[in-house]
Amino acid sequence: MQEQAPIYFDEQGYASLNDYLAEQQPSKVVIFVDDNSEDHCLSHFLKQVTFEQEPITIAIPPGENEKHMGTCMALIIELTNQNLDRKSLLINLGGGVITDLGGFVASIYKRGIPYINVPTSLLAIVDAAIGGKTGVDLEHLKNQIGVINQSQMVLIDENYLKTLPKKELHSGFSEMIKHGLVSSQEHWEAICSAAKDDSVSPHALIKDSISVKHAIVEQDPNELGIRKALNYGHTLGHAIESFCLSSDAIPSLLHGEAIAIGMILETYISVQLFGFPQKEADKLNDLVKQLYPKVKFNTDQIEEIIELMMYDKKNVDGQVNFVLLEDIGAIALDCQVDNDLIMSAFEYYKQTL
Amino acid sequence: MQEQAPIYFDEQGYASLNDYLAEQQPSKVVIFVDDNSEDHCLSHFLKQVTFEQEPITIAIPPGENEKHMGTCMALIIELTNQNLDRKSLLINLGGGVITDLGGFVASIYKRGIPYINVPTSLLAIVDAAIGGKTGVDLEHLKNQIGVINQSQMVLIDENYLKTLPKKELHSGFSEMIKHGLVSSQEHWEAICSAAKDDSVSPHALIKDSISVKHAIVEQDPNELGIRKALNYGHTLGHAIESFCLSSDAIPSLLHGEAIAIGMILETYISVQLFGFPQKEADKLNDLVKQLYPKVKFNTDQIEEIIELMMYDKKNVDGQVNFVLLEDIGAIALDCQVDNDLIMSAFEYYKQTL
Repeated sequence: MQEQAPIYFDEQGYASLNDYLAEQQPSKVVIFVDDNSEDHCLSHFLKQVTFEQEPITIAIPPGENEKHMGTCMALIIELTNQNLDRKSLLINLGGGVITDLGGFVASIYKRGIPYINVPTSLLAIVDAAIGGKTGVDLEHLKNQIGVINQSQMVLIDENYLKTLPKKELHSGFSEMIKHGLVSSQEHWEAICSAAKDDSVSPHALIKDSISVKHAIVEQDPNELGIRKALNYGHTLGHAIESFCLSSDAIPSLLHGEAIAIGMILETYISVQLFGFPQKEADKLNDLVKQLYPKVKFNTDQIEEIIELMMYDKKNVDGQVNFVLLEDIGAIALDCQVDNDLIMSAFEYYKQTL
Repeated sequence: MQEQAPIYFDEQGYASLNDYLAEQQPSKVVIFVDDNSEDHCLSHFLKQVTFEQEPITIAIPPGENEKHMGTCMALIIELTNQNLDRKSLLINLGGGVITDLGGFVASIYKRGIPYINVPTSLLAIVDAAIGGKTGVDLEHLKNQIGVINQSQMVLIDENYLKTLPKKELHSGFSEMIKHGLVSSQEHWEAICSAAKDDSVSPHALIKDSISVKHAIVEQDPNELGIRKALNYGHTLGHAIESFCLSSDAIPSLLHGEAIAIGMILETYISVQLFGFPQKEADKLNDLVKQLYPKVKFNTDQIEEIIELMMYDKKNVDGQVNFVLLEDIGAIALDCQVDNDLIMSAFEYYKQTL
């Protein structure tokens, strides 16, 4: 079993990366970016890092629409043309699309070369870049193709967050909300307080949020049990995200925006099935009202979303498997939910928020 | 680190597979074949195995030309359409293309589902199906894309060999010759004797050949050191195979036929650089003369082959890394060889064989 990648912060992070480069002497280094991280993050990154030879930069357009096998193949062909060998290093500098896709390509190029994640979005910092999940979408199916393979390290530098639009910060905060719900009352309260001050990314909170994810992945790197808790809000959230990506009627949502709706719905279901405390559900409603756009779904659309859920990767034997909550930090895995109750949850979202 | 897959033979193999199916209760089973193994092996296989529900058969055309990412994507889409979940099982029933490609798809579909190899060619039995290497070609570059990921088990049934053309048996025997060269004088002599009787696949010899590979992979599953020994003959052999695949002037060679030429060339180089015994080199020449077609390369073609070698996956820092031999079973890793000496090796092949 692979050990999780070490996570380093700020100056210590760059020092560790410089040590790594000096010790490992990669034969070539490729920095993989999208146009946004190239414009806003690359020069800051290059200033902190000492390369023995000029690294090669490869950029793709930004956005979830790029996260498919075609982009992987283009990157693999580029790495081949650059004659990258197995002692080369790939550094992913960007948001979740860059760390997911770059990590996957590093895992399959010549049966695997080392890679390092330098996440630049809040979503990637607290979630995507941690834990070794890599992959790409197959049409509307999220992360249908991928592997679990740990990076050599994750380097966190919150300076990159300064360049992010508020909408992107809020999207990342959605995963921090999730970490609050699945961890402990204390961390959950800290998340709620931070949001009240409209300060969604204080340093200590980010560190704690990363620790929640790291500790869960440590227990169950291959997602056979407790790691499924990190899919809270994602069973419906992914289906909503997929639906909006392919729908003309509803504008695309950022990942965290879709997950926020998923958490509202799955928390309603948790209240109904497991007596999750309504008072905590209300706090979640307040957060989501404050930070995320409200989306109106009609009945046909909800039925399409439920249809999409049938392809969720956690499903077994044709059963959709939900993660639900009995209380803050009290997780129920592999739960089945009637479609009627899912319809009621959407009704609740429509009425309440 | 993953443990190597257990290898089971004949009736014990089918019993182990039946036990596995009864214990693991996969939600669905897909049997992945090519048209040849579907025609000649599938019905024998199905007679030995007890499935709780009808398995799904997916077939592709035979041949190395199918071993690319396009075929992987078609298979992944088919698995998605069949709604295969993570508790499903993929059984690869076929030669090296089926076990390499099927193993790779199982490794990346939904971040990995279990798979089992049932090799039906001699090449796959003694080599491709063992050791967890999976992957596909990128144009002419062999196995440029893949992962190392062990199967749940390897089931060996030599009955499948009865349906193979002699040319295919000889191709597989080439890897057994390699196992002779890199292992021990005793095993090498056994290989030479078997070939003299034109009996390239007696049971005991196959078992020993598998043991050689298994023991080497056990020591070094990720090919950081000694596993490179199994690439003997492959640095030039792969380049020759790639060249012939894309050349109109020379007919395509089977993998083992190309590797046989590669072994002649690399053994000549071993004699020159490391004093490998000429008497053993002569025995190898006799084997190759007896079993494999002789190919005539002109100087331009040899230069193209040397060019192709630059893309070998073992290369580091732009250096082509050869595995050479000081004696039978005495391996020298990461050797550099002048192009002049490679040209002389081709001249030797032309004159001697």
